[in-house]
Amino acid sequence: MTLDSQTAPADDLLERFRAGQRTALARAISIVENTRPGFERVLHALHADMGRAHRIGVTGPPGAGKSTLTSKLALELRKRDERIGIVAVDPSSPFTGGALLGDRIRMTNISTDPGIFIRSMATRGHLGGLATTTKEVADLIDAYGYDRVVLETVGVGQSELEIARTADTSVVVLVPESGDSIQAMKAGLMEVADVFVINKADRPGADRLAQELEVMLHMRLGEMPRNAGHHGVSLKSVQKAAREGVQAKAEQTGDWAIPVLKTTAQSGEGIDELARTLDRHRVYLEDSGELSRRRQARLAERVRAVVERRLQRLAWEKGPGEEILSGSLRALEAGEVSPYAVADRIVKELGVQPR
Amino acid sequence: MTLDSQTAPADDLLERFRAGQRTALARAISIVENTRPGFERVLHALHADMGRAHRIGVTGPPGAGKSTLTSKLALELRKRDERIGIVAVDPSSPFTGGALLGDRIRMTNISTDPGIFIRSMATRGHLGGLATTTKEVADLIDAYGYDRVVLETVGVGQSELEIARTADTSVVVLVPESGDSIQAMKAGLMEVADVFVINKADRPGADRLAQELEVMLHMRLGEMPRNAGHHGVSLKSVQKAAREGVQAKAEQTGDWAIPVLKTTAQSGEGIDELARTLDRHRVYLEDSGELSRRRQARLAERVRAVVERRLQRLAWEKGPGEEILSGSLRALEAGEVSPYAVADRIVKELGVQPR
Repeated sequence: MTLDSQTAPADDLLERFRAGQRTALARAISIVENTRPGFERVLHALHADMGRAHRIGVTGPPGAGKSTLTSKLALELRKRDERIGIVAVDPSSPFTGGALLGDRIRMTNISTDPGIFIRSMATRGHLGGLATTTKEVADLIDAYGYDRVVLETVGVGQSELEIARTADTSVVVLVPESGDSIQAMKAGLMEVADVFVINKADRPGADRLAQELEVMLHMRLGEMPRNAGHHGVSLKSVQKAAREGVQAKAEQTGDWAIPVLKTTAQSGEGIDELARTLDRHRVYLEDSGELSRRRQARLAERVRAVVERRLQRLAWEKGPGEEILSGSLRALEAGEVSPYAVADRIVKELGVQPR
Repeated sequence: MTLDSQTAPADDLLERFRAGQRTALARAISIVENTRPGFERVLHALHADMGRAHRIGVTGPPGAGKSTLTSKLALELRKRDERIGIVAVDPSSPFTGGALLGDRIRMTNISTDPGIFIRSMATRGHLGGLATTTKEVADLIDAYGYDRVVLETVGVGQSELEIARTADTSVVVLVPESGDSIQAMKAGLMEVADVFVINKADRPGADRLAQELEVMLHMRLGEMPRNAGHHGVSLKSVQKAAREGVQAKAEQTGDWAIPVLKTTAQSGEGIDELARTLDRHRVYLEDSGELSRRRQARLAERVRAVVERRLQRLAWEKGPGEEILSGSLRALEAGEVSPYAVADRIVKELGVQPR
């Protein structure tokens, strides 16, 4: 259950990968996505080639138009001859996943451009969790030499936020109608967003949502004007103060002032500004030392995930876990033994040595 | 890291718990929610008292009105003198969590009724994951003697679906406006739903969504009429065939035909039918043997989660993990060592004995 005990990748795979053969990238991804024997050795071997791509997380509720936005962003970046990888995490089923990917491909004709690589991830059956596998696929695209890797996740659940959180730049996409439900999710989104995008901004409510977000961002910085929320102060004036306050604060401290952009991805409106904003954030990350901090956090998180994945394997695939568990099910249901006592037996059998 | 090595609960806690003292329940939940020393011993000791409550999962997108629906359902069940526990998992922040709980309490005056117990869970900082802790809190409410435990989760992420999946009965709540985004999430929802509720059904689009869901449910059973989807066949006729087909199939096989209910929780419309449907599902679960199957699956899943939580603790809290990791961060970032090689060292240090 260490690297040594794992199957080595086929001799020429790494060679062909480093030579830039697209089939080798696809093959490596397939090995990693399906956690085939030796998948960690592929990742291990390519680790030194990683870390050059700008990783962009795109997340938000279903129906926000993230796929269209990502496609249009990719086309925009292609104008500068950048090479873009897209990893799309679609919800639970291969069936739906396929359908969404189909939409994406029909929607734009980016899939034949060798400068764009698209991979749709099924969300089931990943040993050690989808989030880790998704990031490992992004690692491969990075190592292969793409300039940007976009990780697109649907929804606002914990694992989706986790994926967004480990990107260099996290873009949270909302739509004007999101206003209604923003209360429920704002804390989670606020925490991950480096950039807010209000997509479908040609619909009513876009300006209102932008104002609300700016006020929220401002409150978070603790710079709320004293009279905010009192009668006689319009939301507009609070928003203006908020925007000025955020900018002033950002200039003062060298912090990043989280922008709220409006786009209409379908028509391409605002996509160029989004691309420029991503560039600006990338520069900020490098200048401030934040890039290094985020990448170290990402690497530490990866080590933790890999250790846990190996321990899981030791317990369940190679170890005594399943045997003890299946022998205990009836007694568990009858209340004769507790899950904690069964877990005791399994951990003892594993022979872990506490220090 | 076994039960023996954990702190014993205070002598009289279990006694007071079993005597039905509400403060003991609150105290036990607090110990479990914060994974205080000895929390597993509390759960272990009370295991034999669990398994009597009907566990109902309520999930769906933000803004679907789940809290109102749950409150009204609790009031409905109180009419029969049942005792109801509610565990609400609110999104990421204590701040928002608090606000939502406040809404819930203001909205109804159920919080002073001793036959209703409400607990709101913060979603951060749970060793081994929120999902497991949430289910353990539900276990305590079950052991305490409540007749039903409602687990209410926001969102459609993986961990939310996991919580819903381990209930006896899973209710998925949508609103008429969900139609737009249903494509994106239907696979995940279809998989967990025992009952669909279209809440806020006084808004436009409720009938349309009900039809779509019924057609989907029908297709899933593989009973789609041959001419479905062809020109000249109305959605309405497909839906009628779908409903009849689903019912026929269900009667034939003794399966559960997933109902699509319409409610307006705010006014109480449809809540009585929901309560009756939950009763019907409970009877189905018992008669079909499905209840035992689901509970065994839940217990097996619990054993796995507890083993993994202990292994994590061994690696990170008590073990060599953090020390090795923090000493490797710079080399990791420079690409001199891979996360997989660092994980190797940690696993070797742990001294797990492969069989």
